[in-house]
Amino acid sequence: MTTDRKVILYIAMSLDGYIATKDNSLEFLSMVEQEGEDYGYNDFIASVDAVIIGRKTYEKVIAMGYEYPHTDKDVYILSRTAKPAIGNFTFYADDLSRLVHDLKKQSGKHIYCDGGAEIANELMKNNLIDEFIISVVPILLGDGIKLFNDGRPELTLELLSTKQFDKGLTQLHYKRAHK
Amino acid sequence: MTTDRKVILYIAMSLDGYIATKDNSLEFLSMVEQEGEDYGYNDFIASVDAVIIGRKTYEKVIAMGYEYPHTDKDVYILSRTAKPAIGNFTFYADDLSRLVHDLKKQSGKHIYCDGGAEIANELMKNNLIDEFIISVVPILLGDGIKLFNDGRPELTLELLSTKQFDKGLTQLHYKRAHK
Repeated sequence: MTTDRKVILYIAMSLDGYIATKDNSLEFLSMVEQEGEDYGYNDFIASVDAVIIGRKTYEKVIAMGYEYPHTDKDVYILSRTAKPAIGNFTFYADDLSRLVHDLKKQSGKHIYCDGGAEIANELMKNNLIDEFIISVVPILLGDGIKLFNDGRPELTLELLSTKQFDKGLTQLHYKRAHK
Repeated sequence: MTTDRKVILYIAMSLDGYIATKDNSLEFLSMVEQEGEDYGYNDFIASVDAVIIGRKTYEKVIAMGYEYPHTDKDVYILSRTAKPAIGNFTFYADDLSRLVHDLKKQSGKHIYCDGGAEIANELMKNNLIDEFIISVVPILLGDGIKLFNDGRPELTLELLSTKQFDKGLTQLHYKRAHK
């Protein structure tokens, strides 16, 4: 038995499918920054109470001098080596599929996949993402870290909505067409 | 001096950025087929009078038992080896950039880049595509022939329109933000 908790990938990519440049810069996102426009982020964040993130992505946030947000949620940092938890931040070294299955057995809000590409692809390989909210930024980066790597199974989607914003960002929202 | 003829890439890709499967199948496009809905294709075709296509893509159409359409247009089939023209179908073995520059000096309607990925990427490497009309099909193919290869220059775009269709296809129309 699973609950109706969904795993949702909420992420921005360039039209050519990159989530960052080769040297991990997210600078291109600044072109769509607009006062008072959060592209649905806060509403989305209010709909989740668990976060799955790769260790490298997590450490990137820390290295940039930020505290990792979502301190009010259960955060699972996927890591090859287990480390003691810090509050509700768990360093999870076990199988990612098992984590998702366990979380889905528990009742709660939705589960946010906060990247990076490695974790997202691992989830997609195991068909564990229920919804995709992808913000397409109006730029061709030309090179970088791809959101979608080769070697995943085919998955038919159902388009839930398309939203177009002033700065040229388009947000595509899909769910899996089949379980 | 160039005219205002534009090179337009009009193409469909899966959400994960593939234009065909590894074995060149376009079968996934059938999921968005709908009686009476051509996704703007005929209007688009009426706006062009020249077509650039790679030899392999051209021969794929022929091998599938079709005649190549656009017999009323100037068709340039990019080929490593020159061959005699067939009517208004030219087998072009010279530099692709030169072809585009030459066409843009002539007055006429727009210029359609009909693929494949190799020609599209060669044009993008030389910053020769003026507009992108990309139909995003609601599927993750998981593997295949990517529309966008690594190693292109960065290019800022301006979103002209987003169109959402019943079958879940989203059509994104961009132009280059800078010349």
